[in-house]
Amino acid sequence: MRAHTEYLWFETSKREEYVRITDEVAAIVERSGVVDGFVLVSAMHITAAVYVNDWEGGLIADIQEWLEGLAPKKNYRHHRTGEDNGEAHLKNFVIHHQVLLPITDGTLDLGPWQQVFYAEFDGRRRKRVVVKVLGV
Amino acid sequence: MRAHTEYLWFETSKREEYVRITDEVAAIVERSGVVDGFVLVSAMHITAAVYVNDWEGGLIADIQEWLEGLAPKKNYRHHRTGEDNGEAHLKNFVIHHQVLLPITDGTLDLGPWQQVFYAEFDGRRRKRVVVKVLGV
Amino acid sequence: MRAHTEYLWFETSKREEYVRITDEVAAIVERSGVVDGFVLVSAMHITAAVYVNDWEGGLIADIQEWLEGLAPKKNYRHHRTGEDNGEAHLKNFVIHHQVLLPITDGTLDLGPWQQVFYAEFDGRRRKRVVVKVLGV
Repeated sequence: MRAHTEYLWFETSKREEYVRITDEVAAIVERSGVVDGFVLVSAMHITAAVYVNDWEGGLIADIQEWLEGLAPKKNYRHHRTGEDNGEAHLKNFVIHHQVLLPITDGTLDLGPWQQVFYAEFDGRRRKRVVVKVLGV
Repeated sequence: MRAHTEYLWFETSKREEYVRITDEVAAIVERSGVVDGFVLVSAMHITAAVYVNDWEGGLIADIQEWLEGLAPKKNYRHHRTGEDNGEAHLKNFVIHHQVLLPITDGTLDLGPWQQVFYAEFDGRRRKRVVVKVLGV
Repeated sequence: MRAHTEYLWFETSKREEYVRITDEVAAIVERSGVVDGFVLVSAMHITAAVYVNDWEGGLIADIQEWLEGLAPKKNYRHHRTGEDNGEAHLKNFVIHHQVLLPITDGTLDLGPWQQVFYAEFDGRRRKRVVVKVLGV
């Protein structure tokens, strides 16, 4: 059995940003040497998410607008701590902070339209995603 | 260590449909020979979800109505591509496209009311779910 | 390869309650002897969730209020069965019932603000969470 871990770093220029990371994850899987198993892709910060969905600009704009409606910027209790990112924490629940991808025959076993994304909801600071591969 | 992979195919007759798949997943776990480990059940399409919840018709109707309220059918930017399923992508975020089930003593280690469901949000076409077992 | 399973029991005094369980999960990881792998923390009931987010009382109150807005208490179809917890099932979808945590160098590989929580939406009864460790 093999276990292999790498970290991806992000520092987006905008507060909210959606970054495709399929190729970076696939490269880590290849370096791991695992041919059958799982790769966990998980944000290490609580105002950033990782998800699988379509790589289409219109849809990404739809997601952003929809999330703003579900969790609008407003004066949250959390802001009494000096933070201003309450809505980013809530958006994180909707999108979820992690995905587990199957590896089959040494490659990501994804459907035809599935792409892996990092969703930043409180950017302009360095943040990390852990990518851990486990399998044979 | 063992890894075992199978795929479930779906082609629902309705655009939106909820299909119980606990027995199919349990059968794959049995065929895998794994007695202690995990089984990932993950939709390979981005307008279909996999979840664990109650097998009760009233609740399923509640879920469907609630999702329609959170992500209504409307004219999304995504539809400029020719698609008409923007709301299906958004519902997918709320339900999440995958679950990881524990296997203990060779069987699914679920609570008394936990059932596994495939939730189709844009059906009437062939779609696939990957089921991957990893363990000892 | 090692697999190790324990269960955490909860019986909250309130219907809705958020309980930090990072230390309990870390102790199970230590007892497992796994130095590199995954630990699944998954609610075994369908009206309780497990999530990773900030340990800050204001934010927890924000989450509770926000969930009440997204899935308010009302007369759901599910209540025809004699239950009164329809909203608890729906909140469970938003928060998700499980997390998969990476283990690196024998400890939980979490970011600086990541804490593990059990979220109870229909308490005052005994409920269980399965914690399963898999790795080397």
